[in-house]
Amino acid sequence: MKKAFDLSNQTIKSNIQKLRKVMTDRGLDGMYISSFDPFLNEYVPLQDNHRFYITGFTGSMAEVLVPANGRVRLYVDGRYHEQADLEVDATEVEVMKTGPDSSTTQDLANDVKKLGIKKLGYEADRTALGYLKKLSEVASETVALEGGELAKEIPFEALPALKEVQLVPREWRGRDTLEKTRSIFSNEKEAMFLTALDSIAWITNCRGYHLPFLSSFYAKALVTKEKVYVFVTPETPVSDKAKKESGLEFIALPFNNLPRELDRLQNTLHLNEVQYMPSMLNSADFAMLVKVFGTDRLKEKADGLYGYQSIKEPVEIQQMDASFRKADKAIFNTIKWVKDSIKAGKRITELDLYNETTKKYKEQGAHDQSFNTIAGVGPNGSIVHYGDPSDEVVIKDTDMILLDSGGYFDGGWATDTTRTFFGDSSKKADPKMIEIYTLVLKGTLAVQSAVFPEGTKGNVLDGLARNAMRKYGYDYSHGTGHGVGVHVHEPGVRISTISNVPMKAGQVVSIEPGIYIPGFGGVRLENIAWVEKHPKYPKMLRFVPFVYIGFDPALIDMNLLNSEEKVLLEEYEAECTKRGTSLRTLK
Amino acid sequence: MKKAFDLSNQTIKSNIQKLRKVMTDRGLDGMYISSFDPFLNEYVPLQDNHRFYITGFTGSMAEVLVPANGRVRLYVDGRYHEQADLEVDATEVEVMKTGPDSSTTQDLANDVKKLGIKKLGYEADRTALGYLKKLSEVASETVALEGGELAKEIPFEALPALKEVQLVPREWRGRDTLEKTRSIFSNEKEAMFLTALDSIAWITNCRGYHLPFLSSFYAKALVTKEKVYVFVTPETPVSDKAKKESGLEFIALPFNNLPRELDRLQNTLHLNEVQYMPSMLNSADFAMLVKVFGTDRLKEKADGLYGYQSIKEPVEIQQMDASFRKADKAIFNTIKWVKDSIKAGKRITELDLYNETTKKYKEQGAHDQSFNTIAGVGPNGSIVHYGDPSDEVVIKDTDMILLDSGGYFDGGWATDTTRTFFGDSSKKADPKMIEIYTLVLKGTLAVQSAVFPEGTKGNVLDGLARNAMRKYGYDYSHGTGHGVGVHVHEPGVRISTISNVPMKAGQVVSIEPGIYIPGFGGVRLENIAWVEKHPKYPKMLRFVPFVYIGFDPALIDMNLLNSEEKVLLEEYEAECTKRGTSLRTLK
Repeated sequence: MKKAFDLSNQTIKSNIQKLRKVMTDRGLDGMYISSFDPFLNEYVPLQDNHRFYITGFTGSMAEVLVPANGRVRLYVDGRYHEQADLEVDATEVEVMKTGPDSSTTQDLANDVKKLGIKKLGYEADRTALGYLKKLSEVASETVALEGGELAKEIPFEALPALKEVQLVPREWRGRDTLEKTRSIFSNEKEAMFLTALDSIAWITNCRGYHLPFLSSFYAKALVTKEKVYVFVTPETPVSDKAKKESGLEFIALPFNNLPRELDRLQNTLHLNEVQYMPSMLNSADFAMLVKVFGTDRLKEKADGLYGYQSIKEPVEIQQMDASFRKADKAIFNTIKWVKDSIKAGKRITELDLYNETTKKYKEQGAHDQSFNTIAGVGPNGSIVHYGDPSDEVVIKDTDMILLDSGGYFDGGWATDTTRTFFGDSSKKADPKMIEIYTLVLKGTLAVQSAVFPEGTKGNVLDGLARNAMRKYGYDYSHGTGHGVGVHVHEPGVRISTISNVPMKAGQVVSIEPGIYIPGFGGVRLENIAWVEKHPKYPKMLRFVPFVYIGFDPALIDMNLLNSEEKVLLEEYEAECTKRGTSLRTLK
Repeated sequence: MKKAFDLSNQTIKSNIQKLRKVMTDRGLDGMYISSFDPFLNEYVPLQDNHRFYITGFTGSMAEVLVPANGRVRLYVDGRYHEQADLEVDATEVEVMKTGPDSSTTQDLANDVKKLGIKKLGYEADRTALGYLKKLSEVASETVALEGGELAKEIPFEALPALKEVQLVPREWRGRDTLEKTRSIFSNEKEAMFLTALDSIAWITNCRGYHLPFLSSFYAKALVTKEKVYVFVTPETPVSDKAKKESGLEFIALPFNNLPRELDRLQNTLHLNEVQYMPSMLNSADFAMLVKVFGTDRLKEKADGLYGYQSIKEPVEIQQMDASFRKADKAIFNTIKWVKDSIKAGKRITELDLYNETTKKYKEQGAHDQSFNTIAGVGPNGSIVHYGDPSDEVVIKDTDMILLDSGGYFDGGWATDTTRTFFGDSSKKADPKMIEIYTLVLKGTLAVQSAVFPEGTKGNVLDGLARNAMRKYGYDYSHGTGHGVGVHVHEPGVRISTISNVPMKAGQVVSIEPGIYIPGFGGVRLENIAWVEKHPKYPKMLRFVPFVYIGFDPALIDMNLLNSEEKVLLEEYEAECTKRGTSLRTLK
C-alpha cells in the first residue's frame, strides 16, 4: 500500500542526528520519545507521531529510548514483534521485544536503569504523567523539553483542518451530560480535568472525527457537577446544537492560554478538588494544574472517567448493537466479494481487500473506519497488527486471509471484528490452517459461553481462551480482550494473562484469541460482546455477543471440536443464518 | 462418633465467663482467640485448642473475637459454614460466615474496627505476628497476655507424652540437611528462626508424629548455612541417628530458657541477619528475637522456607508417589468394603466407615492418618469438612458417600484424596447426584489435563475447575487446590479464586472441586498431582496425578461429558484398571 505519509530511511537517519544534536545541546545522555500526541491518543496520525519520525515504525503503540551512544531502541509488544523487524532500519534502530509478562514501558524503564542514564530528556506534552514518575525513579535526573523544542530541529508536519464538533442526536445517545455529571460528583466544588478524548466525547455526547479512526475531537475539558467546560482551539468548528446543549460550555482559545482561563474559572468556581488521571495526562498539563489549583486540591483518579464510561447503559448497548449489525454485513459482504472474485478468476490483491473493506463499510453507512484495517493474506496473517497491505500480494484460492476491521456508524461508537477465512471454500485447506483455526475457534467459544461471578479477574477468562490451544503447544503473545467504546480500545475492562481487572455487568469487551505462525499465516477470531447479569443465576455474569458472522466451514475440523463446542457453534451459526451472515452459504 | 475429647455447652459457657473475668480484670473490651497452638499449627488437638474451649467448634481453622458485650463471634470460611452452625451453642456463640472473596482474619479485623474495640487482648504465644500487625491497625491498643495467663482461670488439659524424633532413612529422603541449608544461605552470618513444624521436619529430615495427623515434631529451630540448631523440650526423646546426623544439633531445654540459649549462640555465631516468617511466628517469639538479635538484624521472609520446600525433588516425588499408591489401595478397599457390605445386607454406619478407613490405611502400612477423615454419608456429604461421623447414620444402598482421607507412610509425607461414591452400583442414583458428580468430575479433569505457562497464577487454574459447573448454576465456596508436603496443607502453592501464587515445576498440589447442596449431599473429587515441565512444549507446565482411583460409573452421566472429557476419563480409568483401583470392577 502506498502510505498517505512516509519517510525514507535517509530522512529518519537525519532526524535521529538532529535529535542527538538537541540532546548534546541540553547535556542529555538519554531521550524518551513516546508514541503519543499531546492528548496521549493511541492512534496518532503518522504526521503527528514523533516516534515515527525517529524510527519509521508505523504500529500504534511503541516506546523509544535514544541513548547518547548506540542505536535507538524501539520497544514493542508481542503484537508488533514481526512488524517492527520489517519496518525499521536495523543499522539505526534496535527492536526491543517485550514478552507477555512485561510491558514496553517496564522494559524501557529497566533499560534506563541498566544503561545508567543520568540525564533523561522527555517531551513534556507527549509524556504521560504516570510514566514520567516511573522514569524519575530510574534516571538520576529527568529534563522536560517544551512542546516546540524538537520541532525547531526536526521537520514535523502540520495537521489537516478539523471537522465540525457535533452533538449526537437524542435518539442515538444514552444519558445527557448533566445526568452523567450529577451521578459522578456529589457537590459543585469537585471537578475532573480531562484530556482523554474518548472520555470528553462520552461526557459531552459529542463527536468530531478529528483524527483518522477516532470519532472524538481535539479538546480538553474541566468537568464539574453542573457544567462541562470544553476547551477547543479557535480553529475548531462547533455546531450550534452542541453549543446550546445544556451543561456544555465550549470555550475557544489557543491551548497556551489555558492556564489563564483555568485561573479565571477557579476564581468563580472555587473548586476544592480537581481530579486527574495520571496515565492520560501529559506532564506539561500536570505542571499547569499544579500552578493553577495547587497540589493540595489535586487528586489522582487512576481510572479517570473510565469506571463510569465502561459500564454501558441500555441505549448505548442498543446503539452499539445496531453498529455491529452493520459492521457484520460489511464484513460478510467483503468475505463474499473475496470468495466470489476468486471463483470468477479475478485478480485481487491484499490492497484491493483493504480498500474493498472500507467500501463495504461505507455501503452500510460508516462515517469512518475505527482503526486501520488489518488485511493479511497468507503469511502476512501472522503479523498481529499488519498495517501495510500490498498491491503485489495476489489472493489465491488456497490462501488463508485475516481481516480485522471496524467502523463508526450513527451514534459514534467503534466496532471491531476479526474473521479469518479461506480463499475458495470448494478447495481443501492446509491441515495446519485447519488445526490452528479450529483451536482458536475453541478459545473464542470458550470465553463467549463462560458463566462467571461478578468481579472475576480478567486473567481467569483469558485462561479459558488459551486452554485448548495450549494442549497442542500453541499460545499467543497478545491479550484476549480489551474494552470497546467511543474508541476501539477503551480502558476499564481487560482480559489478559496479567489482568486483575474485575468483570462487571455492562462492560463491552473483545474476545480475540489467535495463533500466529511466522512465514505461514495467522488466525484471529474476534467477537465483541457485552457483559450481562445472568438471567437465572444470582451474582453470575455472562457474555452476549454483538458480532454474528459465521465461521468458515473450510477451516473447521469438526473432529477437533468436542460435543459441547459443536452445540455452541450450531447455536451461533443458527443466529448467523437468520441474519444472513453465515459463511456456510458461500460455496 | 464419640469424641476423644469433648466439652459440654455448660463447660463452654463457664469458660466464656472465666475469659470475660480476665478481660474485666485487664480492662479489655475485646479479646482475640486463635485456633493455633504456640507453633501456629493448623491441626491442633482439641485439648490444646483454646478456641475450642471457648466455642465448642471442632473444625481445623476459625478465628474468635470476644467482645465485652454480646455473643462470642466465631469466624469460619465456606468449608465450615454448615458445620459451625451445627456445633456451636447459638445463644453464646454467633457464627460469622466468610464469603469466598474475603477471609476469616479479614472479617474479624473489620469487626474490631466496626465495633470500635479500644483495648484488644490476645494470647502472645498463640497469635501470629503477621496478624497481630493487622489487629494493631484496627484496635486502638493491643494487650499481650502471657502464655499461662488464661490457663490460671480456664482448665486447659495437658498434652500426652511425645514419641521419639527419628531421622528419615537415607533411601526415603531427598537431599541431606546441609545440602539444603547450603543452597539456601550464601554465607554463615545468615540464619532463619523457624517455628513452622513442617519446615523444621523438612530441613532436618526428621519426623516425630507428635501431634495427631502430623508427622512433624514439637521444636523450634535456628537454621544456618552449616548447622541447624533444633530446640526441643527435655521431655522430647530424640533417636541417636538423628542426634549424630551431620548438620543437626539437638538442644534440649525448657522453651522459656530459649532466649538465654539464643544469646549464647549469637555470642559464637555473630549472625548479622536472622530471617523470620511473620505469618508462622507467634508474637511472643518475635518479641524474643527482637530482644536477642535487635531489630536491625531481623529480616522478614514472608514465605519462610516454603519457597524451597514446596518444590519437590525427584526422590521426594518418588516417595510421595509410593505413599499415594498405598493410599489409593486403602481408599479403593474401603469403597469396596462399603459396596460389598451393602450388597451383603450388613448394617454399616458412618462411624464404621470412618474407622474402616483408618483400618484400611493401617493395612497398607500407614503410620497415622494425615488429617481427621471426613466420612459424610447422604446429606452429611454437604458439610465440606464434616468431622463428626455418627454411629446412628446407617449407610443405605441409594446413599452418596463422600470420603476425604489421607495418611502417612514410610518417608513421612502426607497424602490427601477425596472420592465420592454411590452405595450400590446396581441401583439407580438420584439424577441430581449424577448431575453434580459429573459436573465436579468435569472440573477435576479440566484442571488435571491443563497445560499452562510457568508462572500462571493459581486463580487461572481455579477458573478451569469451575467453568463447566457454573453453566449449570453451581459453584463452591472453598479453594480448588492447596500444597501438600510434610503436612497435608503446605503453603507455597495455591489454586483459588483469589490466588495470585505462580505455578512452578516441582510443586505438589490438590485438585479438588466440589458441589455441596445442604440437606441433600455433596460431591468432592480430589486428586493430588505434581507439576512437571511439559516434555514437548518449552516453558509450559502440566500435572502428573499421584492419585489413581477410578470414578464411580453409577454417578456419571456420560451424556454430560464432552468427547474430550470422555477420552481423558478413559485414559485415567485405563491406568486405574492397570493398578487394580477402577470402581468399574465393583458391581
